[in-house]
Amino acid sequence: MIQNIFAFILLFSTFCAHAQLPIAKPTMADILAQTASTDWRELKPENTLYLQLPAGTVIIELAPDYAPKHVANIKLLAKEKFWDGLAIVRVQDNYVAQWGDPNGEKEGQQKPIKNANRTLPAEFDRAIDKKTPFSPLGDKDVYAPEVGFSKGFPVALDAENKKTWLLHCYGMVGAGRGDTADSGGGAELYAVIGHSPRHLDRNVTLVGRVIQGIDLLSSLPRGKGPLGFYDKPELNVPIVSVRLGTEVPKKTRVRLELLRTESKAFTYLIEARRNRQEGWFLNKAGHIEICNVPLPVREAK
Amino acid sequence: MIQNIFAFILLFSTFCAHAQLPIAKPTMADILAQTASTDWRELKPENTLYLQLPAGTVIIELAPDYAPKHVANIKLLAKEKFWDGLAIVRVQDNYVAQWGDPNGEKEGQQKPIKNANRTLPAEFDRAIDKKTPFSPLGDKDVYAPEVGFSKGFPVALDAENKKTWLLHCYGMVGAGRGDTADSGGGAELYAVIGHSPRHLDRNVTLVGRVIQGIDLLSSLPRGKGPLGFYDKPELNVPIVSVRLGTEVPKKTRVRLELLRTESKAFTYLIEARRNRQEGWFLNKAGHIEICNVPLPVREAK
Repeated sequence: MIQNIFAFILLFSTFCAHAQLPIAKPTMADILAQTASTDWRELKPENTLYLQLPAGTVIIELAPDYAPKHVANIKLLAKEKFWDGLAIVRVQDNYVAQWGDPNGEKEGQQKPIKNANRTLPAEFDRAIDKKTPFSPLGDKDVYAPEVGFSKGFPVALDAENKKTWLLHCYGMVGAGRGDTADSGGGAELYAVIGHSPRHLDRNVTLVGRVIQGIDLLSSLPRGKGPLGFYDKPELNVPIVSVRLGTEVPKKTRVRLELLRTESKAFTYLIEARRNRQEGWFLNKAGHIEICNVPLPVREAK
Repeated sequence: MIQNIFAFILLFSTFCAHAQLPIAKPTMADILAQTASTDWRELKPENTLYLQLPAGTVIIELAPDYAPKHVANIKLLAKEKFWDGLAIVRVQDNYVAQWGDPNGEKEGQQKPIKNANRTLPAEFDRAIDKKTPFSPLGDKDVYAPEVGFSKGFPVALDAENKKTWLLHCYGMVGAGRGDTADSGGGAELYAVIGHSPRHLDRNVTLVGRVIQGIDLLSSLPRGKGPLGFYDKPELNVPIVSVRLGTEVPKKTRVRLELLRTESKAFTYLIEARRNRQEGWFLNKAGHIEICNVPLPVREAK
């Protein structure tokens, strides 16, 4: 189906040789309506975390290509039910919501960890390899030499130094750490709930992205203590459970599909957001910043 | 006091000729601690809106230099108590919280407006003039030819076309509109509560910025209707009142001071945020995006 749009664009382009944009000028809704089933991928249960709060479920896709050790450790922590009964302890406005052990900083009072690791070496960036896809944004970035997407995640590319890393866009999930690079491990996690704090890139190991339910974190009351920590234990938001998708009974799993960021449809979507075709937009931006690109999600049929 | 930092930097620089950064490497906290009283300006009551919600007060600074007609109209609307008893009707995650008349779209059921205007010509941008200060960010921008600050507001500058405009950073307040440019006027307002939607720049008239209490908007439950509108009237968040600062009794006014974006201290603050000197940061970004620059506020003494 999507090919039809492109054929139309090509046909029309011959009449408007100077136009750089798709002449058919599809909106995001037009593009999504015409995607093929192969443009979508199903969220894999083995890379999905279910963060169960009293108000609902936050669903997170893990990024093993970028943080293999942290993701493996988070899976172990989920399997040993580490987070069950722990809490969201920090909600800092325009920044992050963070969860883990309320006694995590108190020596001797920490919740024990069984088989997982409490800390791990940092995975702030990784070497570029040919196996990992990279779909360039096609617009510049303030912070990184090049930016784009890899399997649904916003990433930077530094071709000169052969490095790539995940970006702190809205909804991204990272592993909190102390002052040293190797003081995190995934037991303390946070999600970005404000303007993208890109200065955190390569300072924290990002481990995934919230796919559904970010509003359950972003609408929480802000903490009044330093850094947005809740200043009274009774304000902490209890975590019912955190489960890996494979551990959730099949009938209660949420089946979601994500638009492949390697698809042509996604490239067209970026263009449709760079120059909005909806009638309401009177001035088209002509550019798009990486964290303003929506990553479409739908329920699997 | 701030001169002492600079003298120290200059002195030290003679020993480290290659360093581009202030050698003393002050953090934001260091810089703020050493500001002079003249580096700060008091929020003027005549340009301040008090949006009173059941949970607290949101304080907004208006931007008459950039939207003179809208700001004048908003002042009139506040004086005639237009918003009292109206509501926050829309909270869209990672986007905006919007307030105004729940019946604003229903012909014949709208709350009457007395002396103010219901609609106004757009003020999306304005001509550059020499009277309006511009402090360049010193870093590139994805959307605009140049960006910086003017009297506390993030702005773009297009020297070629001699235009300047306000930017949709977190906390900025704009005047909602319908499909045509002249269909807004300030009766419907919104505040940005997510990643900066810069594609809205020059599509909506921005009128000011939330200075205090943005968390009262950003932590509201998200609307489940289209575009984040509350889908049931009983979910609307009632507005107790909206008052211009000059109409608030002196003893209940909140006296705030803002760091002058034209001060040297602010230039140093930008650098301190571009390359974070706090020990926790292991990799310095080397760049800063305009909406990631904090705009310091403190209580007046």
